[in-house]
Amino acid sequence: LPSTSTPDELDCSIAATLSVIGDRWTLLILRDVFRGVHRFGQLHDDLGIAKNILSDRLGKLVDSGVLDQVQYQQRPPRSEYRLTAKGKDLSPALVALMHWGDRWYAHGGPPTVLVHDVCGTPLEQVTRCPTCIEEIAPAHIGSRPGPGDPTS
Amino acid sequence: LPSTSTPDELDCSIAATLSVIGDRWTLLILRDVFRGVHRFGQLHDDLGIAKNILSDRLGKLVDSGVLDQVQYQQRPPRSEYRLTAKGKDLSPALVALMHWGDRWYAHGGPPTVLVHDVCGTPLEQVTRCPTCIEEIAPAHIGSRPGPGDPTS
Repeated sequence: LPSTSTPDELDCSIAATLSVIGDRWTLLILRDVFRGVHRFGQLHDDLGIAKNILSDRLGKLVDSGVLDQVQYQQRPPRSEYRLTAKGKDLSPALVALMHWGDRWYAHGGPPTVLVHDVCGTPLEQVTRCPTCIEEIAPAHIGSRPGPGDPTS
Repeated sequence: LPSTSTPDELDCSIAATLSVIGDRWTLLILRDVFRGVHRFGQLHDDLGIAKNILSDRLGKLVDSGVLDQVQYQQRPPRSEYRLTAKGKDLSPALVALMHWGDRWYAHGGPPTVLVHDVCGTPLEQVTRCPTCIEEIAPAHIGSRPGPGDPTS
């Protein structure tokens, strides 16, 4: 991962990602939307978050294209928040964060198990090499500059 | 994912994870340590982070068992920070966050490509079902209460 002088510079995709979702409330809001909590009032009740903060974070997620705001009632106006394709694509990151919490904090076993809905089997997330057809341990992850490398 | 009334409750593993790493600076520090930046001064220079914030975040990562602080010089005392097993286990989460940034923000192509060090092939991260031996799309991820479910 190339060097950055500030986290807002876009020469690192982790920094770019964090500039959008790198906030604890934002990730908790996304967690809720993934599990079907779509409305402002429900999110407020579920998260115990101040309304101004919730409003701010939802606005930023809509602005960044992660959520769509869809009006479901005219009078009074009421909206719900739906994941866009870009939002749904955060699923692997949320799965990875949850699995790490399960491994290191859920001493009584995971509170929730993510499963394949078709068969109920707990799902796995693996890092693999499509050439060697094998899983890659963290120690065997290397990196090289890509086409967007700012120094190339 | 079960409901939480505050993000600090441990009935959700995403909330548990975020209570440790749910801070933009913390994740950027970890990104740097993964790519071999281990010393306070190097982290300070690379991230452009205030020393008091860097010191605070490193202290928290050591306290939570993600980093080990290892003294490499006696006079003056100088330390470096190394990933523990728990810290290395964050690799899939950082890979997922980086890949999302690559897909949605790296319009000129990814700045950095993560590869299998043995063969140089860009690595893949997949969510799969070990019973059906197939990849699982986000729409086919379900959930059920696990052994640590606080309501069971």
